[in-house]
Amino acid sequence: MALPLRRRLPVLPLLLLAAGGLRAAERSGSSSAMEELATEKEAEESHRQDSVSLLTFILLLTLTILTIWLFKHRRVRFLHETGLAMIYGLIVGVILRYGTPSTSGHDKPFSCSQEDRPFTTLLVNVSGKFFEYTLKGEISPGKIHNVEQNDMLRKVTFDPEVFFNILLPPIIFHAGYSLKKRHFFRNLGSILAYAFLGTAVSCFIIGNLMYGVVKLMKLVGQLSDKFYYTDCLLFGAIISATDPVTVLAIFNELHADVDLYALLFGESVLNDAVAIVLSSSIVAYQPTGENTHAFDAAAFFKSVGVFLGIFSGSFMMGAVTGVVTALVTKFTKLHCFPLLETALFFLMSWSTFLLAEACGFTGVVAVLFCGITQAHYTYNNLSVESRSRTKQLFEVLHFLAENFIFSYMGLALFTFQKHVFSPVFIIGAFIAIFLGRAAHIYPLSFLLNLGRRHKISWNFQHMMMFSGLRGAMAFALAIRDTATYSHQMMFSTTLLVVFFTVWIVGGGTTPMLSWLNIRVGVDPDQDPPPTNDSFQVLQGDGPDSERRNRTKQESAWLFRLWYSFDHNYLKPILTHSGPPLTTTLPSWCGLIARCLTSPQVYDNQEQLREEDSDFILNDGDLTVTYGDTTITANGSSGPHTATTSLDGRRTKSSSEEALERDLGAADHEVTSRGTRLVFPLEDNA
Amino acid sequence: MALPLRRRLPVLPLLLLAAGGLRAAERSGSSSAMEELATEKEAEESHRQDSVSLLTFILLLTLTILTIWLFKHRRVRFLHETGLAMIYGLIVGVILRYGTPSTSGHDKPFSCSQEDRPFTTLLVNVSGKFFEYTLKGEISPGKIHNVEQNDMLRKVTFDPEVFFNILLPPIIFHAGYSLKKRHFFRNLGSILAYAFLGTAVSCFIIGNLMYGVVKLMKLVGQLSDKFYYTDCLLFGAIISATDPVTVLAIFNELHADVDLYALLFGESVLNDAVAIVLSSSIVAYQPTGENTHAFDAAAFFKSVGVFLGIFSGSFMMGAVTGVVTALVTKFTKLHCFPLLETALFFLMSWSTFLLAEACGFTGVVAVLFCGITQAHYTYNNLSVESRSRTKQLFEVLHFLAENFIFSYMGLALFTFQKHVFSPVFIIGAFIAIFLGRAAHIYPLSFLLNLGRRHKISWNFQHMMMFSGLRGAMAFALAIRDTATYSHQMMFSTTLLVVFFTVWIVGGGTTPMLSWLNIRVGVDPDQDPPPTNDSFQVLQGDGPDSERRNRTKQESAWLFRLWYSFDHNYLKPILTHSGPPLTTTLPSWCGLIARCLTSPQVYDNQEQLREEDSDFILNDGDLTVTYGDTTITANGSSGPHTATTSLDGRRTKSSSEEALERDLGAADHEVTSRGTRLVFPLEDNA
Repeated sequence: MALPLRRRLPVLPLLLLAAGGLRAAERSGSSSAMEELATEKEAEESHRQDSVSLLTFILLLTLTILTIWLFKHRRVRFLHETGLAMIYGLIVGVILRYGTPSTSGHDKPFSCSQEDRPFTTLLVNVSGKFFEYTLKGEISPGKIHNVEQNDMLRKVTFDPEVFFNILLPPIIFHAGYSLKKRHFFRNLGSILAYAFLGTAVSCFIIGNLMYGVVKLMKLVGQLSDKFYYTDCLLFGAIISATDPVTVLAIFNELHADVDLYALLFGESVLNDAVAIVLSSSIVAYQPTGENTHAFDAAAFFKSVGVFLGIFSGSFMMGAVTGVVTALVTKFTKLHCFPLLETALFFLMSWSTFLLAEACGFTGVVAVLFCGITQAHYTYNNLSVESRSRTKQLFEVLHFLAENFIFSYMGLALFTFQKHVFSPVFIIGAFIAIFLGRAAHIYPLSFLLNLGRRHKISWNFQHMMMFSGLRGAMAFALAIRDTATYSHQMMFSTTLLVVFFTVWIVGGGTTPMLSWLNIRVGVDPDQDPPPTNDSFQVLQGDGPDSERRNRTKQESAWLFRLWYSFDHNYLKPILTHSGPPLTTTLPSWCGLIARCLTSPQVYDNQEQLREEDSDFILNDGDLTVTYGDTTITANGSSGPHTATTSLDGRRTKSSSEEALERDLGAADHEVTSRGTRLVFPLEDNA
Repeated sequence: MALPLRRRLPVLPLLLLAAGGLRAAERSGSSSAMEELATEKEAEESHRQDSVSLLTFILLLTLTILTIWLFKHRRVRFLHETGLAMIYGLIVGVILRYGTPSTSGHDKPFSCSQEDRPFTTLLVNVSGKFFEYTLKGEISPGKIHNVEQNDMLRKVTFDPEVFFNILLPPIIFHAGYSLKKRHFFRNLGSILAYAFLGTAVSCFIIGNLMYGVVKLMKLVGQLSDKFYYTDCLLFGAIISATDPVTVLAIFNELHADVDLYALLFGESVLNDAVAIVLSSSIVAYQPTGENTHAFDAAAFFKSVGVFLGIFSGSFMMGAVTGVVTALVTKFTKLHCFPLLETALFFLMSWSTFLLAEACGFTGVVAVLFCGITQAHYTYNNLSVESRSRTKQLFEVLHFLAENFIFSYMGLALFTFQKHVFSPVFIIGAFIAIFLGRAAHIYPLSFLLNLGRRHKISWNFQHMMMFSGLRGAMAFALAIRDTATYSHQMMFSTTLLVVFFTVWIVGGGTTPMLSWLNIRVGVDPDQDPPPTNDSFQVLQGDGPDSERRNRTKQESAWLFRLWYSFDHNYLKPILTHSGPPLTTTLPSWCGLIARCLTSPQVYDNQEQLREEDSDFILNDGDLTVTYGDTTITANGSSGPHTATTSLDGRRTKSSSEEALERDLGAADHEVTSRGTRLVFPLEDNA
């Protein structure tokens, strides 16, 4: 499909690719040695400065690491590592801003008229020698004199696409890969609702409120430049990407309630993807005709189409590369060579990103779903060594990238040269964000509670409301386009929102948890005690049947539907687990089934009992309630996906019994306990 | 110190750093929408092409990995993974070269006269809008029409500095970090001799022979352009960097003789560093006056000074950051948080590179010595988890980078657009390389055998002669400057040398090993049996004293000198092992000694017995035999280094006893065995 996103020229992987054998300061025998020497000296100086600026970031990260250690060592919880990284960034930013000389002598802009469209490559004849120049970008006429303001500040300013193409992918992949599947899938329906409906609601409410603020600013003469409705909506999309990394870190440390954790984590992971695609769609909203910023139904539906197209396309890309990796690792004996296996895993995951970008989809979104698919299927095929290798590799990459972004944010507050701080806009934004979050959490929770047996209590809702921190994704989205006045104002405001939420909200998490009476120190594998006041659990007949009922209800129906398909077809095809395909596929597929089933599966066959699944509900509901979101639950099955095929066939095998076992497969110590708890063996015998 | 290296403008880390908030295709309200759209489409197209070309490399690597697996699975040894990567690269290169259209329409060069020196930034006024351009490099007038020949070929061509700044550092660091210390240090003297003297000899012989070839070519009219003596010497330096990765992989697999392995590995690791610095020094050789390519004593000594300066500076940088990391990991309890520890380790190792580059030294060389220092000290302080994490992390990075370079080499044979293949030069180069290697191995081995008790046998010498493969480093050095005709010819020739040696020599390793009767299947922890014909071991009196004598002789005297200093002072300061400093330092340092000694050391103290070391030889010899190379053995001791201080003081503690124990510290299962074998406990009691 077409890609209607605005893409900037200097995009990353490209940054690594430089054109041809063209070289700066080439030796040319005829030139005067002095001149050559001068150019060379300059190039050397530039290289040295670049090294120094990267070194600055590395030292920042090193300092952050050492301080984090000190904090962890002393069990300080009021400041998270990301908040710390920001503080160090701020300090260095202040030093760079006010401690370095602010002019650079030699790089005066040179003017040269050209009638046509700008070329991407320029050859310039300088006293007989030809030099090649490449297009960096357009500069608004008023800003020409700011271009070369401060060499050092320029050096520490990264291309915004670096965030999207280098730093975000490992963070997002890690989020998908480290997903705690059991609790995520148990709350799948709610998570999807929060991520899709919630983010959309939040985006529109914030957008509209901010449009009101902008109108007000124009009225009182606070705003001189243009600020369109679409800009407001874009701001809504940017700022709707929540990133409760601080909260989740504390949850992890204190072992807070696992369902709440799953809800927050799942929402934040998916709403990053939604926010990216949403902002792209808003940018794609280009009404035709004279008034380019009024409402246009055609353009609106085009934007919706773009949203669906990009989202589903990126999702498919991620799922497909995940599935391919799973097949490769299943059908080769690559696990005898963990290094090769890890390298393949890394390359395939990276190729998802590039593939999606090459096809015009969103790489970051594709990488997220690739991560989830890899964790769900490929992980099971890996050797024990590769499992820990891949986990550790992405953990380190994620850690470095995340702290880098946060320290860069601190730095950017002082080194970014086009800040526009408007007090009215900023106060308006904080209020809009608060209202947007409230309008997203409370009504949706109410609606979800109608369907959930395992209700989301008020305390949980308050905690979710509180945990709406903004982080790396909002920053990356905001810095992507800072060309116009309105976008600069949005960027500066986003930066302040991130600072405020990470420091204040992040620091207030522990007090908030105890104030809201949310359980801490929970064993993630134990279900909450029935008497706990965080849950409004309906009591069953006896302890056994009660447990069973509750589990059936806990497993979202959407999930159960997906689960039986996954368990009966996808797992056996893609991994070494699950029931043999020969029993689940119709008999005419016998040959294929035998080929695809791995020998290990037959060994497990004895333990499986045949039992009709009663979980397949009418899947018509799906599309009514969740609209376009069903793709997430149903579409990831790769080449074999066909929702209708589920209905016509009796699904055999004890999918429910295997349910808990499979979900716990990632952490083995959980598995047996989880299975026992839910389905005591004597109950089945 | 001053940095006389020629540095090109588009240098890596810099690639990640792009200037300011300047953006391509900025939105400007007043511009016509159509024009903007066109620029945007172009940008999008360019981004997509970049993704596709990176994807090409990833698919190449994936294919390579799968084929490697197949080869390993079937125990095929005639083709190593690097050779395979080159073949796949070649195939894709052919497809790109002949399968893609060769023109790109819109990027015609634009000429614009400018009187002054070229600016690094250019502002161009295109029908009222300003666009920023950055300098890419100079183009010789004859090549202007080649600039934009083929978009796809341009896209797959990386900036040469990418190799130096992104791909080589992990390879070189891994080489240092994975050094098998025990056998490396046992052969330290020989390795240093091969690496320093050998590389210099090889460089000069190849350079002079090639100068003869060039003269011959000029005589028969085969050479039209300039080709100076310094160019020939540069070629000698480039092609002297050996990279027996294929041979060593086979050695590893077959468990071939460990001493031969250590000699080859140590030589190749260090001669990479020597070759880089040598080539920089040759480039720095700029005689003054009219005839800029005649011999000039002042310039020559300046080059030698540059060599010594860069080498020792880079060495110090690497050692210092390694020492700092060791101190940090020793004195903090970071090992409770392996993720933080690994991240810190990674950042510190990377900062070495940047620090060296920022100071004007050579990052790659610094990284090598940093790797060795990290392995020797920091590794002992890491938690068990971090040990495997860091090893695995760098193993994966090294694997990916290496295979990437080799597949790029295959690709470059067809996609590089300025190849100059001259049959005379190529044949001359092969002969010169052969003679250079012979003149380096045989005479040096003869000289070394005069001093070595544990002789290097003829078979070993032949094997070393045979193993002079050229690889990633030669390629990276050659591609760094391909501006002039002579450099292009050197690059094309280097490419062919790499292909030939990797395929033919790499494939012939196994037959060669058996033909030369070199032992395979050796337990690396066992000393060779005295009757083995690869070694001319002199028989001692009894089995015990004989063993002891041999070990004393085996441990090079240079090493023993270094060892007692390292064991008594550096290890206790930097790690948790070794004797307490309170016993080794003079009494007036008592307080410092107590502060620096970690509590664990006192626990080990009981086992240590005091014994005078008889290994401190007159260190005047060092400077006579090894000249500038002594810095490698003695200079790495950080802030406390002072060679003279060794003489004035009685070195206590049983350094010899601890020698073997310490060397084996990296692989614990080796430790106890090694210690027992050499110094039976009853012998000391």
